[in-house]
Amino acid sequence: MAIITLTTDFGQKDHFVGAVKGAIFSEIENVNIVDISHYISPFHLHEAAYIIKNAYKSFPKGSIHVIGVDSELNPENKHIAVYLDGHYFICADNGIISMLTSEVRPEKIVEINIHDRFTSNFPVLDVFVKVAGHIARGGTLEVIGKPITETKELTGIRPVTSNQSSQIIGNVIYIDNYGNVITNIDRKLFEEVGRGRDFIIQARTVKFDKIHRNYSDAINFDAPPEKREEDGKRIALWNSSNCLELAIYKSNLTTVGGASSLFGLDFRDTITVIFTPKL
Amino acid sequence: MAIITLTTDFGQKDHFVGAVKGAIFSEIENVNIVDISHYISPFHLHEAAYIIKNAYKSFPKGSIHVIGVDSELNPENKHIAVYLDGHYFICADNGIISMLTSEVRPEKIVEINIHDRFTSNFPVLDVFVKVAGHIARGGTLEVIGKPITETKELTGIRPVTSNQSSQIIGNVIYIDNYGNVITNIDRKLFEEVGRGRDFIIQARTVKFDKIHRNYSDAINFDAPPEKREEDGKRIALWNSSNCLELAIYKSNLTTVGGASSLFGLDFRDTITVIFTPKL
Amino acid sequence: MAIITLTTDFGQKDHFVGAVKGAIFSEIENVNIVDISHYISPFHLHEAAYIIKNAYKSFPKGSIHVIGVDSELNPENKHIAVYLDGHYFICADNGIISMLTSEVRPEKIVEINIHDRFTSNFPVLDVFVKVAGHIARGGTLEVIGKPITETKELTGIRPVTSNQSSQIIGNVIYIDNYGNVITNIDRKLFEEVGRGRDFIIQARTVKFDKIHRNYSDAINFDAPPEKREEDGKRIALWNSSNCLELAIYKSNLTTVGGASSLFGLDFRDTITVIFTPKL
Repeated sequence: MAIITLTTDFGQKDHFVGAVKGAIFSEIENVNIVDISHYISPFHLHEAAYIIKNAYKSFPKGSIHVIGVDSELNPENKHIAVYLDGHYFICADNGIISMLTSEVRPEKIVEINIHDRFTSNFPVLDVFVKVAGHIARGGTLEVIGKPITETKELTGIRPVTSNQSSQIIGNVIYIDNYGNVITNIDRKLFEEVGRGRDFIIQARTVKFDKIHRNYSDAINFDAPPEKREEDGKRIALWNSSNCLELAIYKSNLTTVGGASSLFGLDFRDTITVIFTPKL
Repeated sequence: MAIITLTTDFGQKDHFVGAVKGAIFSEIENVNIVDISHYISPFHLHEAAYIIKNAYKSFPKGSIHVIGVDSELNPENKHIAVYLDGHYFICADNGIISMLTSEVRPEKIVEINIHDRFTSNFPVLDVFVKVAGHIARGGTLEVIGKPITETKELTGIRPVTSNQSSQIIGNVIYIDNYGNVITNIDRKLFEEVGRGRDFIIQARTVKFDKIHRNYSDAINFDAPPEKREEDGKRIALWNSSNCLELAIYKSNLTTVGGASSLFGLDFRDTITVIFTPKL
Repeated sequence: MAIITLTTDFGQKDHFVGAVKGAIFSEIENVNIVDISHYISPFHLHEAAYIIKNAYKSFPKGSIHVIGVDSELNPENKHIAVYLDGHYFICADNGIISMLTSEVRPEKIVEINIHDRFTSNFPVLDVFVKVAGHIARGGTLEVIGKPITETKELTGIRPVTSNQSSQIIGNVIYIDNYGNVITNIDRKLFEEVGRGRDFIIQARTVKFDKIHRNYSDAINFDAPPEKREEDGKRIALWNSSNCLELAIYKSNLTTVGGASSLFGLDFRDTITVIFTPKL
């Protein structure tokens, strides 16, 4: 059965998501529709890119991912369909897809050109659902668009290696549901630049010299519970997406707050890793 | 496969929605359950009516729509099932359905009378799910209720045409996820009354003399980007439901705010369209 | 078709829920995935237990319930799979399951031991999904874990009967979407201890001497509407889970507030039922 996922900034109160699902079922009877997120901050391309990037890989090959963020058609915001890493993506050419194409080369990109058939101003409902239905029925991308080779870049949020490879300067790219701070410094880059050297991670007033493999790894379970200082402990770790994450162990957002508020870190803020020269 | 949609004020934290879905799967094995919204403001009949009205049409004919808002059975709140426009609706007779019946005449309405079989105080779970299962298996409405001809009206929120057809006085009926302000003035009424005349739309301190077809339509893409004044631009447009909407182009609720807060407009506030006399 | 439900503290903005669903579809093609809740307060075991307990029973026997709250594997937080009341539960052994086992004896409990096959730190995605897939395909629990007999207890939140059975001292265990206050005093205990005696329910400054069967039951529909004092009326009732609930009739959280804020009652606060001695 075809799988169509939805990633939007529609929220789940309005009729938008329901209407889109209704249109999908009107288009194809047998389909699994999966919500990835409808809580992208309105028009926030980086958030959308981060979330779709970390969600799509666990779906079966052939899945169709509809991204409804900043998707109104206009002269500078074309609609595209992309086949990449065995998955289909339908979205506006606003830069979201560049976070995927920077890692995996797309096999095919088309600029969707079926708009003359529709008149409304709800492109996800009209255009993206039609394209998704076409792909789900086994149709090729060429039928609904003309091949292109480039997509727009999402700029300004890649880590920089500087000072003769002794530093990585990255940024906060996401704050998760627990208030934890996700950076764009990934394990691969860290290990390439660091080559096993000691390091200090600096972000405003907090510092770390160790990166854990998971949250519990920061706790000494040999100590008696009352001496462990578990809750509220500040840790850096490689998260499940292999990004450097600054976290509070079992953070409670309603009482002490999460890492984001406690460390004073928000989207785009700078995180620096300074490697120690080897003697 | 049968489609059952859910529109409630249950929220998505509590066990209510999960329990209802479990009961549906216990009733019928092969069914697609679709959430339209669980974030109706508690007991807010107008919100529920607006959302179901704008969502149901995109679903395939024969879909079954369960509305769980203010649904407790009492002497003044009967349970009904309605067949209208090829769709089934199961809800309390509290006025929600009147926003649909004002446009499309229902083919059949029954007052549900299977309550003697149930004892709990969770009617969506007990009664509505049983009725939905009955319909999904091809059962007729007469088996679960007795035919009636009238449903309750939802009062006080229709636009008024006044002053020898030179004005339409409407109201805010909904604030959407982007903070945009939706009114009950639809395109059909506007064109019938306006007959192509110039007009001014007034709502508190804001005025508009043009209604766009979509958001991007308000932007001059021939101008260089730095001269366009895109973000935060105030616009009036026909939204995807053909209702007059007062909006902020790419509004950011967390920084400058949306149309609702910037224009000081909330549910039930007045919007006036004044047409210019033709010379 | 197999049914897999999800109860987590992931929220619905992040990629976590979408990624887990993708992994389930990669594991088994034909499956109904049902969200019970993703809004458990982070690490709040009592909330998770309350919600899963009240939702699971309406699902068909054989359903598989994945609970992703405080699920990171560590020396004190093993992963378990439990077969109980005809349902499967996959979770960490952190006490959540004890609210179910206190009422129904589990037929089988295993400590999951397939962790050597995985390396990530997202156990719901890696481990729980694999176990769910195994069960959905008809596999036995012994294949993925070793039988154990005990699970951890969730402490400190059971009602106490005192003073020669003239009092029940219970606690607030949940605040629902309408702000209503749910207690751990259930109807069975109340009737066993009360044996038909009169009573007073005390909770901070509010008192009740009657427990209604449902919300509308508190309203006198014979009186003319303007004399009923409906909205905002304070009531105690047996909710749909047969727990004692303190509620506001048609509470409006955005204007006057719900029972929780109006009564000043929050999680763990004390509720006392005092029975009158029979003469």
